[in-house]
Amino acid sequence: MKRPRRRPDSAPRSTHFDAKGRARMVDVGAKAATAREAVARGRIELSAEALEMVRSGRAEKGDVLGVARIAGIQAAKRTSEWIPLCHPLPLDALEIEFALEPAPPAIAIEARARTTAKTGVEMEALVAVSAAALAIYDMCKAVDRGMVIGGVRLLRKSGGKSGTYERPGG
Amino acid sequence: MKRPRRRPDSAPRSTHFDAKGRARMVDVGAKAATAREAVARGRIELSAEALEMVRSGRAEKGDVLGVARIAGIQAAKRTSEWIPLCHPLPLDALEIEFALEPAPPAIAIEARARTTAKTGVEMEALVAVSAAALAIYDMCKAVDRGMVIGGVRLLRKSGGKSGTYERPGG
Amino acid sequence: MKRPRRRPDSAPRSTHFDAKGRARMVDVGAKAATAREAVARGRIELSAEALEMVRSGRAEKGDVLGVARIAGIQAAKRTSEWIPLCHPLPLDALEIEFALEPAPPAIAIEARARTTAKTGVEMEALVAVSAAALAIYDMCKAVDRGMVIGGVRLLRKSGGKSGTYERPGG
Amino acid sequence: MKRPRRRPDSAPRSTHFDAKGRARMVDVGAKAATAREAVARGRIELSAEALEMVRSGRAEKGDVLGVARIAGIQAAKRTSEWIPLCHPLPLDALEIEFALEPAPPAIAIEARARTTAKTGVEMEALVAVSAAALAIYDMCKAVDRGMVIGGVRLLRKSGGKSGTYERPGG
Amino acid sequence: MKRPRRRPDSAPRSTHFDAKGRARMVDVGAKAATAREAVARGRIELSAEALEMVRSGRAEKGDVLGVARIAGIQAAKRTSEWIPLCHPLPLDALEIEFALEPAPPAIAIEARARTTAKTGVEMEALVAVSAAALAIYDMCKAVDRGMVIGGVRLLRKSGGKSGTYERPGG
Amino acid sequence: MKRPRRRPDSAPRSTHFDAKGRARMVDVGAKAATAREAVARGRIELSAEALEMVRSGRAEKGDVLGVARIAGIQAAKRTSEWIPLCHPLPLDALEIEFALEPAPPAIAIEARARTTAKTGVEMEALVAVSAAALAIYDMCKAVDRGMVIGGVRLLRKSGGKSGTYERPGG
Repeated sequence: MKRPRRRPDSAPRSTHFDAKGRARMVDVGAKAATAREAVARGRIELSAEALEMVRSGRAEKGDVLGVARIAGIQAAKRTSEWIPLCHPLPLDALEIEFALEPAPPAIAIEARARTTAKTGVEMEALVAVSAAALAIYDMCKAVDRGMVIGGVRLLRKSGGKSGTYERPGG
Repeated sequence: MKRPRRRPDSAPRSTHFDAKGRARMVDVGAKAATAREAVARGRIELSAEALEMVRSGRAEKGDVLGVARIAGIQAAKRTSEWIPLCHPLPLDALEIEFALEPAPPAIAIEARARTTAKTGVEMEALVAVSAAALAIYDMCKAVDRGMVIGGVRLLRKSGGKSGTYERPGG
Repeated sequence: MKRPRRRPDSAPRSTHFDAKGRARMVDVGAKAATAREAVARGRIELSAEALEMVRSGRAEKGDVLGVARIAGIQAAKRTSEWIPLCHPLPLDALEIEFALEPAPPAIAIEARARTTAKTGVEMEALVAVSAAALAIYDMCKAVDRGMVIGGVRLLRKSGGKSGTYERPGG
Repeated sequence: MKRPRRRPDSAPRSTHFDAKGRARMVDVGAKAATAREAVARGRIELSAEALEMVRSGRAEKGDVLGVARIAGIQAAKRTSEWIPLCHPLPLDALEIEFALEPAPPAIAIEARARTTAKTGVEMEALVAVSAAALAIYDMCKAVDRGMVIGGVRLLRKSGGKSGTYERPGG
Repeated sequence: MKRPRRRPDSAPRSTHFDAKGRARMVDVGAKAATAREAVARGRIELSAEALEMVRSGRAEKGDVLGVARIAGIQAAKRTSEWIPLCHPLPLDALEIEFALEPAPPAIAIEARARTTAKTGVEMEALVAVSAAALAIYDMCKAVDRGMVIGGVRLLRKSGGKSGTYERPGG
Repeated sequence: MKRPRRRPDSAPRSTHFDAKGRARMVDVGAKAATAREAVARGRIELSAEALEMVRSGRAEKGDVLGVARIAGIQAAKRTSEWIPLCHPLPLDALEIEFALEPAPPAIAIEARARTTAKTGVEMEALVAVSAAALAIYDMCKAVDRGMVIGGVRLLRKSGGKSGTYERPGG
């Protein structure tokens, strides 16, 4: 099995594919394990009725956000199972916060992931946000099937060779 | 352990919590296993450069969408591991389609899930869309960290006691 | 590969091993899928200080029992991954209840599992109790390392060929 | 999303929840990876008939304890999937021993876990004991449904900032 | 997202891809759940020394085959996690047998899987054989790194629309 | 629970069992984390018709090898779940290559795994080859049930105390 010669190529290329287009886990063997952090955000838009159910539930009738937080934490720990070319990573910390927004009714989700590893934790933070949003959808869908998950994005990340990224406009 | 008396309560309540607010898997034992289908959609907005990488990659340099499709299918099969109160479900079929949109640059994702079961497959379709979008993010992030996943929603579902749902406006 | 002749054997034998002592998943192909239920109980003994932390946490500082309940539900859904010779099973319902006991300080845990399947859900109920207890241990261990998990047992089960079992003395 | 001010608070608090009571994975980023060990014990009480089945099975009819040992090892490797707020951890070693006790009939289980990591392996040792006990239950339940799992506890642990813990009375 | 018109096409096509070449889980929704069985075989060739270690180990020093059997059973239950386009399936039964062959030294592996489902259990049987062989490799590799796993094939399968298949020549 | 005295014993013994024959995860706590690599190979023999389907599919009708590559990568990341006594390991890199062989018709599979860890990655490379081969089997089985997976072996490995191994004859 001969290795292809790398030809000059100015087009952008995903590092997750080699010169012949074969998917691979990028080799991070030569990278140093350093402290890394990533913060991601997303939102789920829902009806005022569903939002009220979530809000009141926190006090007495069922902690939707508590369950969604665990969903996000547990999914983030297993990010490399959901995302095929992602490296497995030992998370140092993961936190998820929610903010209820009355008008238009929505729940904002923010996840902050930290590790000491050879690769970044952007995907872990994004997976945490997505899983938490999907869990909210699941628990509220008997009341509202029209919910929309959106704005799932990286807010900032630090550490590693590429350094710090701050999303313009936050 | 006495069971609480159910008090009258007109407020909407998530069926995933009992009258005392305790999370639970809803009892579907009395429901019939029927054919069910759900279709979900979402989008990932990305830079023109990243979109071009995905487009050209299909032909020669790395099949981002092929990998993302497998990510979606595999995640959907394990939906009950991502979503804490979701019932495990034997999927009959799962298909994922992508459409490249040039302006503004984006990739539309549609997942169609089918089962013969006591509960619906909305979550499986939504998980498939989310995992596919996250996998695209992972493979393109070296080129564009500003991608945004959005518009993740249920388009329609059929089967089961609650019958057919069609999202208004599609 | 010839099959061994079954010799007469009056000693009790686990059905999980064949006549030659080889572990196997028992063949349930000829059994009917019927409604089945199992209830299991267990306890975790902890210091008065840790119990107080759990009690007050429910109101304001961190819902130990809410997290433990999700741990139990999620572990029960994957019982066949933890228990090597267990059949995979689609859970119809799972509920977990806790009761705080002041003296001696302890938390009682009860799990109720239901399915419509060819095998029983005893293991699912027992796994739910164990995982919930272990999760409580994890969250309280900074305050008390001396906690003891005990009394994990089947309270009753119904359905299936062997019918109803009620634990003598409850 | 503003961070809450930490108010003075003398009550014990689980480190798995922040000052506002939100569950989180504790941040271990600043901790050093050191050698750590934990030993846990538990017991399963069973009928004399079931114990005899286990004992004789070791010689010829089915190695209940061999299967239970694998159950414990495999579950321990995936502790962070059972226990929601547990950090993933690379186990250096795991060993499980059983001792058959004739009167009253019981099987004692001891698990010893080692790692070089930022957090301890108490939960891995406790999960190993619990999974092994549950697997024994599963394999013997056709003969005895009255088995009880108990005495699951930490015997000692060493390594890490909090140093060595020895359970009083063993 | 318009569906492609199916054009006439006489070339063989994997049913796991649609007319446009997109991977998918084949739709089995219209198929009946029937009793199905599959038998697969494979072999691992190893040095006489390693074979002797396995043989003697059964009696006293470590049950390589007992562990390998559990590896095969547990992997088979999760076949749909290994094999991306495989449907999840509730196994009714799984058995694995080994036969030690002295010259040339080898261990033959046979797995028999049964289910009542809409799709066959060929993959489950093949996965069981492969995982058992890999586990043997793992346990013997300190003594022999030259082992070769081969001859992994379907021996026969029955049930389902395509009926019975018997491998010519066994 | 007293520890057994180690008696002199000249017979080869799997390090995965202690002196009393009990399965265990070997203690690697005292080993250094060093760069390690392993290369494994295997083959799947298939009919000329199935091979043609795979070959043409790469261009237009369904990328069997693309899906099989992802199967191999994802299985390799979770090697410690399939192989009971394997240590969990953070993969630095994983690559899989295929070569189509016309006569006799076959697909050669080569996997290269790298890590920086206390144990080697032989099993990860072998698992990758096996899972990729099984996935090819799954996608081609509608056309050819007679495929045979064989020649799964370690080609070479480097790093660690035992140093470099090169398979004689390649």
